[in-house]
Amino acid sequence: MIKAYAASEPGKELNSFEYDPGLLGEEDVEINVQYCGICHSDLSMLDNEWGITQYPFVPGHEVVGTIGAVGSKVTTFQVGQTVGLGWFSRSCFDCEWCLSGDQNLCQTAEGTIVGRPGGFADKVRAHHRWVVPLPSGVNPETAGPLFCGGITVFNPIIQCGVKSTDRVGVIGIGGLGHLAIEFLHAWGCEVTAFSSNPEKESEVKQLGADYFVNSRDPEAIKAVENSFDFIISTVNVSLDWNSYILALRPRGTLHFVGAVLNPISTQIFPLLMGQKTISGSPTGSPTTIAQMLDFAARHQIEPVTEIFPFEQVNEAIDKLRHGQPRYRLVLKM
Amino acid sequence: MIKAYAASEPGKELNSFEYDPGLLGEEDVEINVQYCGICHSDLSMLDNEWGITQYPFVPGHEVVGTIGAVGSKVTTFQVGQTVGLGWFSRSCFDCEWCLSGDQNLCQTAEGTIVGRPGGFADKVRAHHRWVVPLPSGVNPETAGPLFCGGITVFNPIIQCGVKSTDRVGVIGIGGLGHLAIEFLHAWGCEVTAFSSNPEKESEVKQLGADYFVNSRDPEAIKAVENSFDFIISTVNVSLDWNSYILALRPRGTLHFVGAVLNPISTQIFPLLMGQKTISGSPTGSPTTIAQMLDFAARHQIEPVTEIFPFEQVNEAIDKLRHGQPRYRLVLKM
Repeated sequence: MIKAYAASEPGKELNSFEYDPGLLGEEDVEINVQYCGICHSDLSMLDNEWGITQYPFVPGHEVVGTIGAVGSKVTTFQVGQTVGLGWFSRSCFDCEWCLSGDQNLCQTAEGTIVGRPGGFADKVRAHHRWVVPLPSGVNPETAGPLFCGGITVFNPIIQCGVKSTDRVGVIGIGGLGHLAIEFLHAWGCEVTAFSSNPEKESEVKQLGADYFVNSRDPEAIKAVENSFDFIISTVNVSLDWNSYILALRPRGTLHFVGAVLNPISTQIFPLLMGQKTISGSPTGSPTTIAQMLDFAARHQIEPVTEIFPFEQVNEAIDKLRHGQPRYRLVLKM
Repeated sequence: MIKAYAASEPGKELNSFEYDPGLLGEEDVEINVQYCGICHSDLSMLDNEWGITQYPFVPGHEVVGTIGAVGSKVTTFQVGQTVGLGWFSRSCFDCEWCLSGDQNLCQTAEGTIVGRPGGFADKVRAHHRWVVPLPSGVNPETAGPLFCGGITVFNPIIQCGVKSTDRVGVIGIGGLGHLAIEFLHAWGCEVTAFSSNPEKESEVKQLGADYFVNSRDPEAIKAVENSFDFIISTVNVSLDWNSYILALRPRGTLHFVGAVLNPISTQIFPLLMGQKTISGSPTGSPTTIAQMLDFAARHQIEPVTEIFPFEQVNEAIDKLRHGQPRYRLVLKM
C-alpha cells in the first residue's frame, strides 16, 4: 500500500489516504519520495479549476526521491539512485513529438497528478523515461521545485533561443520568476525584474537581477520601452500586455509560461512594425530537464525554499493559497 | 520638374501635380518610373488612416523603372538599369539594425510615400541602397507588386524559418495572399488557402494551393484543427483568431502581415500547451528583397495583375477601394 495525502472534494483539506498501486508496470519505476514541492498547479487541480481533477486527489508533481523498485524492462535505473519527477510521468514515445525529442508536446502525455495519485505520498510511480537522475551538485532538499517551476522557465530559454547577449525581463517574482532570474543571470543575460512588490528589490537583485521595475507603475514600464529582447511572464493574472510589447525591442519576444485564464488582448501594429512575437510553452522534455539540472549544478542555481514536514501539508497549502511564499514550498517526508 | 499625381486632401481624387525635387542627393538615385503597383497602404495613406500623411500626397511605393540619374557617390548603379523600389526608400545605415542587415527594422527608416512624394509620377528618388536591381527573368510589367505586397509575404518565410516540409495556411487570398500561395508552393510546402470567397477555389489551386477552406464556415476551420506549422494572415479585418490558433500544430506560428487595426484577443492556454507563437513582420530588407526577386525568377512567380494607364489612376484607386481586384493593380506610364 502507498501512504498518501488526498482531498476528497474540490478545495477540501488533505487527509491520510492509502491505496494499492497494483503490480509495477514493466517500464515503470517506483520512487521513494523524500521531498515534494508544492506548485500553484497543485492548487488549481485541488480546486478542480481546469475541470479534469479526479477525487480522491493526491497532489504533488515536484518529486525528489530514490528509486525503490524498477519494472522488469527498466535497465537505466538502479534501486537507491536519487531522481526527480515533474509534471508529466508518461507519454506515448511513438508519436512524431516523442520521436523528435519533444515528449512534452506529446498529445497523449499524462500528468503525474492527472487521473492518478501524485507525489504527496511515500511512493509514486512513473514511466522511467520521465524520471531524471539528480546530478551530484544539486541539493535534493531544494531540487523538487526545479522539476516543474524550474523547467517551466528554463525550457523557453532553450526553445526561444535566448542568447547570453540578450536583455531580458521577468514578470512576476514568485516561485517561477525567482528561478527565471537565477537561470537568466547564469545564462549571461542582463536581467530586469518586473514585480508589483517593491520590497522584493534587494532580494531579487541578490538572485541576479540587474534592474528592478515596479510593475504597478505604468510610468516605470514606459521608461523601459524598446529595451528587451525577451520578456518571460510567470504571472497568472491579466496585465497591460501592450505595455510589455512596447517594452520589447525589434525582434523581441513576450513569452508566457503562467496560465493566464483571461484572454489576452494586444494590438497587432507593434508586432508588425517591430517584428515581435508572443509565445507560450509548457514544461520541458526529459532531455531538457536533464540539461537544466546539469546547468543548475554547474552554476549553483537553487530554488529558494521553505520546508514543511509532510504532516503539515495543509498548513503549507494554506500558505500557498493565501500567503506569499518566498519563493517555493517543499514538503519533507 | 517631376510630373506626378497627388491628392490635396484625405480621400480626394488625384490630380496632376508638378514639383521640383531639387538637387539629387549624392547617395540617391532617380528612377524613371515605368510601372507602379497600387497597394492597400496607398489607400490608407491617401485617407490619412494612420495620421501621418502630408498633402499634397503622391502615392506609389511599388515602383519599377530604369535608373535615370545617380548621385555623385553612387557606384553600384548605371543609368538605364532596370530596378524596383518598395515601402522604404531610406534608413540610417548606422544603427544596429541597419548594420545587422535588418534595415527594415531601422527605427528611423523612411517610407517612400511618408513625408515625400511617391511613385505615381514620371520620376521618383530614393537612397540607392533601398533600390534593388530587377534580375533577368522577372517581368517588369508585373514586378511592381513584389516590392511591397510580395516582400511582405516573402519576408516571414525567411524570418520565421518556414521549412519546405511544413504544412502552411494562408488567410485572405487577395493582393498579398495570392503571392503568399505562389511563394509557399514554390518553397515546397503543403499550402491551404483560407478565403471567404468559395468562388476563388479553382483559381487559388491554379496558383499552387493544395487545399481550400471557406473561412466563413467555422465547421470547416474546426475540421483542420491541429494541422498547420505556419499560418500567415494577410487580412486587415478581425477574425476568430482562436480558431486559427487551434488549427496550428504544436510549435506552430500564426503570423500577421495584415495591419489589423482592432486588437486581437487570444486565449493563452493553447499557446502554452502547444508551444505556439503569434508574430508579425513588416516589409523586408534590401537583401531579402533581392533574394525574393531571385527566387521569383527561378520559379516563375509573378503577381497576377490588372494594368491601368497612369491617366486612369483614379479609376484604379476606385477599383481597389470598392472592388475586388484579382489580384493586384499596376499603373503603366
